[in-house]
Parts: sequence; structure tokens; C-alpha cells
Amino acid sequence: MSTMPVHKYKPFQPIHMPDRRWPSRVIERAPRWCSVDLRDGNQALVEPMGLERKLRMWHELLRMGFKEIEVGFPSASQPDFDFVRWIIDQGLVPDDVTIQVLTQARAELIERTFEAIRGARRAIVHLYNSTSTLQRRVVFGLDRAGIAEIAARGARLVKELAARMPETEVALEYSPESFTGTELDFAKEICEAVMDVWEPTPSRKIILNLPATVEMSTPNVYADQIEWMHRNLKQRDSIVLSVHPHNDRGTAVAAAELAVMAGADRVEGTLFGNGERTGNVDVVTLALNLMSQGVDPELEIHDVQAIKETAEHCNRLPVHPRHPYVGELVYTAFSGSHQDAIKKGFKALREGGSPLWEVPYLPIDPQDVGRSYEAVIRVNSQSGKGGVAYVLEHDHGYVLPRGLAVEVSQAVQRRAERTEGEVQKAEILAIFEREYVNRAGPLRVTRHRRVGQGADERHEFHVQIRGAAHVLSAAGGSPVEALASALSRHAGIAIAVDEHAAHALPRSAGDETAAYVAISVGRKRSFGAGTHGDADMASLAAVASAWNRARPADAAQLAAAAE
Amino acid sequence: MSTMPVHKYKPFQPIHMPDRRWPSRVIERAPRWCSVDLRDGNQALVEPMGLERKLRMWHELLRMGFKEIEVGFPSASQPDFDFVRWIIDQGLVPDDVTIQVLTQARAELIERTFEAIRGARRAIVHLYNSTSTLQRRVVFGLDRAGIAEIAARGARLVKELAARMPETEVALEYSPESFTGTELDFAKEICEAVMDVWEPTPSRKIILNLPATVEMSTPNVYADQIEWMHRNLKQRDSIVLSVHPHNDRGTAVAAAELAVMAGADRVEGTLFGNGERTGNVDVVTLALNLMSQGVDPELEIHDVQAIKETAEHCNRLPVHPRHPYVGELVYTAFSGSHQDAIKKGFKALREGGSPLWEVPYLPIDPQDVGRSYEAVIRVNSQSGKGGVAYVLEHDHGYVLPRGLAVEVSQAVQRRAERTEGEVQKAEILAIFEREYVNRAGPLRVTRHRRVGQGADERHEFHVQIRGAAHVLSAAGGSPVEALASALSRHAGIAIAVDEHAAHALPRSAGDETAAYVAISVGRKRSFGAGTHGDADMASLAAVASAWNRARPADAAQLAAAAE
Repeated sequence: MSTMPVHKYKPFQPIHMPDRRWPSRVIERAPRWCSVDLRDGNQALVEPMGLERKLRMWHELLRMGFKEIEVGFPSASQPDFDFVRWIIDQGLVPDDVTIQVLTQARAELIERTFEAIRGARRAIVHLYNSTSTLQRRVVFGLDRAGIAEIAARGARLVKELAARMPETEVALEYSPESFTGTELDFAKEICEAVMDVWEPTPSRKIILNLPATVEMSTPNVYADQIEWMHRNLKQRDSIVLSVHPHNDRGTAVAAAELAVMAGADRVEGTLFGNGERTGNVDVVTLALNLMSQGVDPELEIHDVQAIKETAEHCNRLPVHPRHPYVGELVYTAFSGSHQDAIKKGFKALREGGSPLWEVPYLPIDPQDVGRSYEAVIRVNSQSGKGGVAYVLEHDHGYVLPRGLAVEVSQAVQRRAERTEGEVQKAEILAIFEREYVNRAGPLRVTRHRRVGQGADERHEFHVQIRGAAHVLSAAGGSPVEALASALSRHAGIAIAVDEHAAHALPRSAGDETAAYVAISVGRKRSFGAGTHGDADMASLAAVASAWNRARPADAAQLAAAAE
Repeated sequence: MSTMPVHKYKPFQPIHMPDRRWPSRVIERAPRWCSVDLRDGNQALVEPMGLERKLRMWHELLRMGFKEIEVGFPSASQPDFDFVRWIIDQGLVPDDVTIQVLTQARAELIERTFEAIRGARRAIVHLYNSTSTLQRRVVFGLDRAGIAEIAARGARLVKELAARMPETEVALEYSPESFTGTELDFAKEICEAVMDVWEPTPSRKIILNLPATVEMSTPNVYADQIEWMHRNLKQRDSIVLSVHPHNDRGTAVAAAELAVMAGADRVEGTLFGNGERTGNVDVVTLALNLMSQGVDPELEIHDVQAIKETAEHCNRLPVHPRHPYVGELVYTAFSGSHQDAIKKGFKALREGGSPLWEVPYLPIDPQDVGRSYEAVIRVNSQSGKGGVAYVLEHDHGYVLPRGLAVEVSQAVQRRAERTEGEVQKAEILAIFEREYVNRAGPLRVTRHRRVGQGADERHEFHVQIRGAAHVLSAAGGSPVEALASALSRHAGIAIAVDEHAAHALPRSAGDETAAYVAISVGRKRSFGAGTHGDADMASLAAVASAWNRARPADAAQLAAAAE
């Protein structure tokens, strides 16, 4: 039991509809999209867009393929009026795009709205009045009939003015604003009153938009409301059923999705969810959610970063680093086990040959929206070997054996813990190369050749020990085994090669080989790595690195033995 | 049809459950909360928290009333290990709070985990392994039995180590990680295999946590999955069914809510949704969603701003300006019609006497979470009279007549359009006072008195015109009418008082009166306002202001007439 003032609030009344159908539905095609960035989004900005920003947003929306764009509330705002005139007068509206303008259901505002759209090829006049019980009581002081008459009167005037403007194909959208706070039977009544005026037909539909002006309940309740309207509105085939969810409870995306399952044909929203208060539903997330299910989103989002930059510039508001599909951190895994799984997922994808995207922790391929893999794996003190191995392999071509990967990642993790921060990729490379690769002195192998033949074949190694040249030699199968054997004998301590691996390392300056060894020097185990244009020399450098790492104290002894 | 690479993705297979019950449920009590800020949240940070930040987060979570807190992944991270030891050794864990620690189901990690919790009064050991079809195939290369054995073996070791540590009450939480990608029958099978080891009872329950490690479908599908488990798991009365939703599709809040309707008892999440990639579900939003429905959230969120500051400090990540309940802009209305409705809503609330919160566009009372009304109404070029009237009334005590409010808001709007920005409240006051209130010269009324009695009563006005003193007089009911009449006669032009209103204006220096008039000077209408310690003088100052605004060109004429 908390001390929060719970008594001030009452529960939203759910809809009784035991035979609801939407929970068994799946979305199989994208709804019609309508962007309201230039209206609902713009209106909610601390600093609304000027002409430059509006035009940049407008062109971005066109590039993305929006076919319906609410361009303003021209009767309420001179800059909106001017912008609507500008895009019409300058011929900036493509043939297949319809502009939409919002107006309250008041005569002088509707008239001004028609001045704004004069000369447009097509336009949706979006008429609204508020219908909720609360607003009827505290704002308008009117009963249902009075509120319905406001809507019908507005629709009559739209019809009359549209008839006088035959060069423009005018469609009507009607919103019972604050729909979520409106009794369903009254919402139906007022929508149908507007339909009676407008007389829609299947070929000349009316758009009925049912906004969650304020999100008032869990999203399933909104879906119930939409399904109720979908099933109960008359002449359903003459209606485009539209939704316009806000995000007061953080569930606008869910509300839109469930509403589409419940029968909505059309969704109004904005890029990344800008809009009044908590914002409108985010159309980019909705679209990419569809894509992730194999459903054509009917929007072009090939460069989500560019779209984000437009939104941030125009709205002067940031997009959050954890925003789905676009945030800076959303394709990033810091957790070791996640990194490991992603690395294996990429490998399976490469090897499997299936066209389907299946990588753990990555719902979509970042490249499909113009994001690179670079940021996928980032390393902090919470990361394990997977991330470090991934960075070394993906960014630098080193494919580390598992034991070495564990050791390197521990070194990286110690560093992350010391600095309490992320370890940059360049640092990971530096930690690895400084410690393991071609590790400098005391021992360096400068030349290797095979001498003798058959059973007498020996390996001869020209080495430098503390800068002085020596020649060691040993029999043995591989050069690596032979060098270990030669070093054993000369240093007087058992050296065994426990692991040895090598692979081509594509470098800009021509191919090299990277080699890795684990050796035991007495009871001490040591990893080393080497790179070289010659494969044998890479492996020998790896042995030298491992030796140099393991036995600095014995370097003098080795030097003495070799002399 | 877009050109997006839709073919790479396949739809998530929905659950066939036509008799699902959750869509008819309503949440009537808060779930058990578990904060995972210090583990899942921390692990996803570019810069994980150090001790100072962890302690600050820990104390914030305690203040909020969390009773279960996942404090780290001690076997994977030395800083996490050290922090768990620190809070145990320093006695920082209150009696009614249980710490929780995450571990993979591997022997060495489980052993290390028990070292971390040694000496704790109570602890939840949270064991996980990944169970999805994808991870079984590409990460583990194991079949169902192999994966189930990992979990059971882990549980056996937890049980064994717990038995050796009787001073600590150890509870087991098991997560089939990547549950959303796991076949339901296998999820049931593996959970029950763990139960067979742990042998939970109704008084010693096991926590089974079903994470949406990756959000893979619409939230109703997650609810179906949870309801299926809720209905099909054996010994349901010995289970605490927990959920742990991530936000890849932007619907984690909805998923958690629908999951609770579907039978979940417990929710793991973080403050404002920090966590891997797109984050965990936001517990603050879930809690305040409950409060907005009259359900006790069982968390203390009296100062959401302070909680936000803690989260931003500890996570070094911002909370978005549109984040539900806490963002800078979420209690703010810029739209004129919204502002007008909010203003009327506040008035109805004041006058209605109901304890229930009902204000349009404000789902909760901002003051309940420590936010003030100050920011509720902000004015930009999209705003109408409501906002300006609200600011002048709420911040400054001026209750403007409607016509005057329209005129002032037009002036404010022109200014907003010129600057393309928000108009600060101080500017609104300045625009109003400079233009309308006690408007300086040419005319100023310095004194008023009534002379004569009964039918002979007259008003005598001492006025200054361009600094020169004059006395005017006229009969007439009210001083306002008399001044208008005297000015009419002297200036030779008809002056009528169209509106007159006044109210007390509480000021720090003692009460004053604010008065407003609309006068017609010839055919020109003009508003004016005045303030004064004397009510009559306030009204006369309003008339003078209106005159001075209307007729600057006639000032010379008036002066001449008066001489």
C-alpha cells in the first residue's frame, strides 16, 4: 500500500464485448498512413517550424512515400496558412499526394480553411469537434444534440464550400475529438450525423478518424472501442476508418497495432512520435514492426538515420538513444552472452544460405535501414569474450581461438573496470596487438629455412636475442614444432605447442597470415600471435611472441644458452 | 508497395487460443515489482555505474518502495560482485527488501554467485539459460533435452549451495531466456524440469520469469503466451509468474499490462525503461498508469523529477522530453483549443467540489508527482486565447473578458509568428500591461469625487491632459458612465461604454482592483484596463487607457476642448 493519492482517480470503464475478434487477428498489410508531423507534431513544439523547416519535413515525408499529409491548421495559424498556400502555389504537391488541413467545426474557420486550399488538386478537409462527456460538460456546456449539431453544421458548410470549388477534389475527414472519452453510442451517432450530411459512397468514402486524443486505458480497450465502431457504424463500405493514437500511457504503438487488428484502415501519426504532450504514435516504429513480420510497410525507410536527422532538425527535439529501430544504442549489445550469441548468429547466417534474417537480439538487419554493424557490439565492463572476439574479427580480421579470446577479453574487461567506461574498439585492438602480436624481444625470428631431406630434414632458424644474431636448429614436423624443440633444448626447459591456428588476414597492403599459438613453457601456459606475409614466418612469430610473454625472466638464460 | 527488403523476414506464429480470457480482464492491483536497474539497466550502459552511482540508484529504489531489486550479475562482473558484497557487508539492505542476483546456469558462475550473497538475510538467485529455437540451433548446438539439462543441473547446484548456507533464505528464479522465441510446450517442459529439482510449495514458491528478451510480435501475442503458461504450468499455486518485457517494437508497457491481465504476478523493469538495446519496460509508467485508474501503484512516486534526475545521473542517459508522466513537455499544452479546455477544466474542478481529478488533456494531476502547473500552458504561434488568458489569470491574477482575451492573444500570436518561437510568460504579461493597463497619456485621471446629492449628484474628475491639470464633470449613474459622458462632451465625439468588469487583484503589497472596459469612440472600439487600490479609480484608469489607445490623434483636440 503506497501513499499515492489513488482516491483521486477512477478506473476507465471497459467495453463489454466477449465476442471481440481482434485478438485472433494478425496484421497482413500496412494501413493507409497519414503523417501529421506538420500539424499535430508542429503544434506541440516549443518552437514551431518556420518555412525552411516545414519544407525540409515536407520533402522528407514525400521521399518516404506518404500519400496523405496533414500540412497544417491554416485557420488557426498564419504560418500554417502561408505554408499551405506556398506548396500549392509553388506546385510542390505531387500528383499522387493529398494534402490534409485541420479545422474546428466553426464557420469562419472553415471558410478560412477553404481559402488556404484554393487551387489544390485534391484536399482532405479534416473537421473536428470535441465529443467527450468531460468536454461536453466543462468546456461546451452542451448536450449530445448540441454537440452533434456543431459537427453536422460544420459538415454542411464544408459540403457547400466544396461544391463551389469544383477544381479541387475535396474529401471530408471527421474526428469526434476526445473519442476515447466519448460514449460509443454517441460516437456512432455523431459520426453518422456527419455521414448523413456528406452522403459518402463506396467510391467516395468519408474518413472517420477516432482519436485517442488522450490515451485513457490499456490498448486492448482502445481496440475494443475501434472494433465496436467498425462493427456498428452504418455503411461501413463507405468509410475509411482511421485512428490517431496519443501516447499518454506509453502504449500508442500497441494501441495503433491492436486498432488495425480491430478494423482500422488508416493510421495518423508522426516520425518518431512527436506531438502534443507525450506525442503521437510513431509511424516509423509501426512501419518497421510490419517489416520485421514480412509485411510490406509501404514506406521507404532505407536511411533511418537521415530521417532522424530531419526530425531532429525540424522539431528541435532529440530522438532518444533507446528509441526503437533508430536510437543510437538499439543495435548495440554490451552483455557478453548477447555478444557471443550475435557473433554465432552472424556466422550461422553466413554459412546457412537462407535468405531469412535470424540473428539473436537483432529483430531486423540494421543494414536494411541504413545502420551499419559497426555499433552492434560494444564493450564495457559487463561484456564477455564474445564482444571482444567480434570486434577483433569483424573490424580487424583476427579470428582468435577461444582460449585466447577469453584471455584478451579479461584484459579488456579489467581496463573497462578501471575506467568505468566503454572500451573503444581502437583500444581493444591496441590491447591485443601490444600484448600478443609480434611481441617484441628478447627473441625474434628473422629467417627460417629447411635444410637436408627426408629423414634428415631439419629446420634452421636465424634468430635475434637481445639484438644479437644466432642460428638454432631442430628436426620436427612443422616449423612451429621445430622451433619449440630448438628453444627447449637451448633454454633447458620443456616447451610444448598446445594449440596452433592460422588464417589469411586480408590487409590493404596485400594478404598476410595471422597465426596463433598456445605454448607451455614448463608448467606455464602462454598465448602468442604473429602476422607476416609468409605463413610459416607468421607462425614462428607467434611462437616467439608466446615465449617473450611467458619468460621474460629467462631471457638472459636463453641468451646465455644460445651463445 | 515499397522497396523495403520484406522478403528477409517471416511473420511470428500467433498462438491459437480462441478461449483466451485476458482481453476481458482489468488490472485491479499492482503486480510485484522487481527493479533490474542495477543489472539489466546497468549492463546496457555505455559507461556502467561505479559505486557512487550504484549506491545512489540503490537508495532511490529503496525510497520508491521496491522490495525486490536485482543488484547485479556478480559472477560476470567484478564491480557487480563488489557492489553486492558492499551492500551486504555495510548492512545497507533493509529487512523487508530482497536482493536478487543473476547467473547463467554454469557451475563456476553459480558458485561465484553464492560467494557474492554470503551473509545476506534473503536472496533470490536468478538462474537463466537461453531456450529459443534460434539460440538452440546457432549458439548452443543442443537439442531440447540438452538445453533442459543445463537448466536442471544449474538448479540442482543452486539447491545444494543454498542448503549449505542456511543463514540465507535463498529463493530461486528461473528464466527460460529468449522465452518469446521458444515453443510454449518446451518452455513449460523446461520450467517444470527446474520445478522438479527445486520442489516449490505454495509457501515456498519458485519465481518463473518469462522474458520478452526480444520483443517479437504485437503485445497481445505475448499476453497469449503468458496466459498459456499461466493455464498450463503445473502447480500454479507454487509459482510466482514473472514477466520481463523488452521494448524492441515500442510496446513493452503494453506487453507488461496485457501480461498482467493474462496471469502474471510480477514485473521486472527499470526506471524510465533503461536496459539492453531499446530498454526494459518502464516501471514508472506502469505504476502511474495504474494510479490513473485508481489502482494503488505500490510505489512512491511523489517527486518524479527527482527520480528522473537520479536515473539521468546514474545512467548518463537522458529521459526524453515526451516521456510519459515525466518528460519536460508532457503536462504542457501549446494548442489553443487544448489550453482553453484545460482552463475550463481547472475552473470546473475548483467549482465542482468533486474529489475526482478530471481535466481535459491531463490524465493525472501533475502535482501528484511533484510537477507544478506552471508549465501546463505554454504559448507559441499555434496557441489561441485560452493559453494567454490562462497565463494572465493563473500567473498574474488578471481575469480578462473574452473579447479582450482574444485581442491580447492575437498580439501574442503575432509576436510568436515573428520570432517563430515560444513566447515566455513574462513577455505575455509585458505585452498586455504595456498596451492595456494604466496606459500612459495623453489623458490621466488623478482624482474623482461625487458632488451634490440625489438628482443633482454629479461626478467631478480631476484629470491631467499632457501634464496639465483640468477638471471635468458630468452627471451619470456610475463613475465610468460619467467619465465617458464628460469626455464625449469635451471631445465632441460620442463615447459609449460597451463592457465594464472588475475584480479584486491580490498583490503582495495589498489588494488592488483590476478593471476592464470596452468603449466605442465614434465607430471605433477600444479595450482598456486599469489597476488601483481604489475600485472606482481602477475603472476610471481603464476608461482612460481605452481612450488613450483609441484616440491618440484626438488628444490635441481633447486638450483644446478642455481648456
